Amino acid sequence: MTQLGPGRPRLGPRRRQGQTPRAEILDAAAELFTTKGYASTSTRGIADAVGIRQASLYHHFAAKDDILDALLDETITGPLELARALRADPAPPEVALYALALFDVRQLCAARWNLGALYLLPELRAPRFESFRHRRDELRGHYEELSGRIEAATVPPTAHVLPFRLVESVINIRSDEGAAPSRAHQLIPDAILHMLGWHGDVEGVRVAAEDVLSRLSLPAR
Amino acid sequence: MTQLGPGRPRLGPRRRQGQTPRAEILDAAAELFTTKGYASTSTRGIADAVGIRQASLYHHFAAKDDILDALLDETITGPLELARALRADPAPPEVALYALALFDVRQLCAARWNLGALYLLPELRAPRFESFRHRRDELRGHYEELSGRIEAATVPPTAHVLPFRLVESVINIRSDEGAAPSRAHQLIPDAILHMLGWHGDVEGVRVAAEDVLSRLSLPAR
Repeated sequence: MTQLGPGRPRLGPRRRQGQTPRAEILDAAAELFTTKGYASTSTRGIADAVGIRQASLYHHFAAKDDILDALLDETITGPLELARALRADPAPPEVALYALALFDVRQLCAARWNLGALYLLPELRAPRFESFRHRRDELRGHYEELSGRIEAATVPPTAHVLPFRLVESVINIRSDEGAAPSRAHQLIPDAILHMLGWHGDVEGVRVAAEDVLSRLSLPAR
Repeated sequence: MTQLGPGRPRLGPRRRQGQTPRAEILDAAAELFTTKGYASTSTRGIADAVGIRQASLYHHFAAKDDILDALLDETITGPLELARALRADPAPPEVALYALALFDVRQLCAARWNLGALYLLPELRAPRFESFRHRRDELRGHYEELSGRIEAATVPPTAHVLPFRLVESVINIRSDEGAAPSRAHQLIPDAILHMLGWHGDVEGVRVAAEDVLSRLSLPAR
């Protein structure tokens, strides 16, 4: 038996991805929530999948909704930090929007489990998830604000709600087709600029957006 | 007590929308599935919400997944019939695609319950829902085929997967914001043409698309 954090013995060898017991619990829960369903998964089932006792799981998470909250939060932490950094950056809006969409699509494609599929759960409307909802609303607001700053008289302001939705369509495509579309990190940001009626040099914007991501010390790929 | 189909007595007055007991069961189930969750809803709970006995419910639906299947099927029957009719129609591809998106967005906005939020349920990957999955894949295929026939050299063929996703973003917007965006039936088809790099007379396409819907005897609004 190996040690699991503060003195709890593990039932067997490590079964999950993750450097820490907490990460292993999150990985197991993410798999069960996305393949079996949130309501149909118990903390007992998660503990079994990790190979630990249920009591050990409760040392890390007091309840199943705390695990869901931690997983959901991971899906927006990176893009939200980037969106905040972009507010203080001198990049023009089309470059900032492209950089945000590029980064966000990449992380939605790269995530081991398609956790965004859980965004539509009715359980997320509970007060427990208010903080997550506020953070995701903030991210959505950054997309809308950047979209609104792009100069293109041909589309109405209501179109500014759509770039965020096109980015999150990666979740639906992964769910239906088992994988994200090839080169989604270029396809979707390009489509966003076209959709907003922006008719400049998209190739130039793409290069500038990669530069912004490098400058802000966020991984470009 | 009122009569409920073949001789079953109703427990009380009608509580649900719907002209028939079957429609009342579907309406109650749709509400519970979208507000409480599919796994967390029992056939007993559905029967209670309608005001009938569980045995009466089983006269109409043998199991909970039969109710879900009937509800999901309703969400795509209209657009799928239209997409098939459009294959035999002489309308140019941009008009046909606009008409399909316009019709589909309207029905997604008008639906009393936001049933599309159930498309991401892991339960739908079961063999029981294979027929529904095939029908939705066919609808998706019609969108992609029409998108591919639109002449616009500026976007890669991979962009043809995105119009279907932009239409279904109505579901995500309803889930997050409680309502579809105003004039979504114009906003989203317009955005699709822009996104595909189509630079013709969008206003003219919109008028032609409404004409196609009238000609095919499908409700224009």
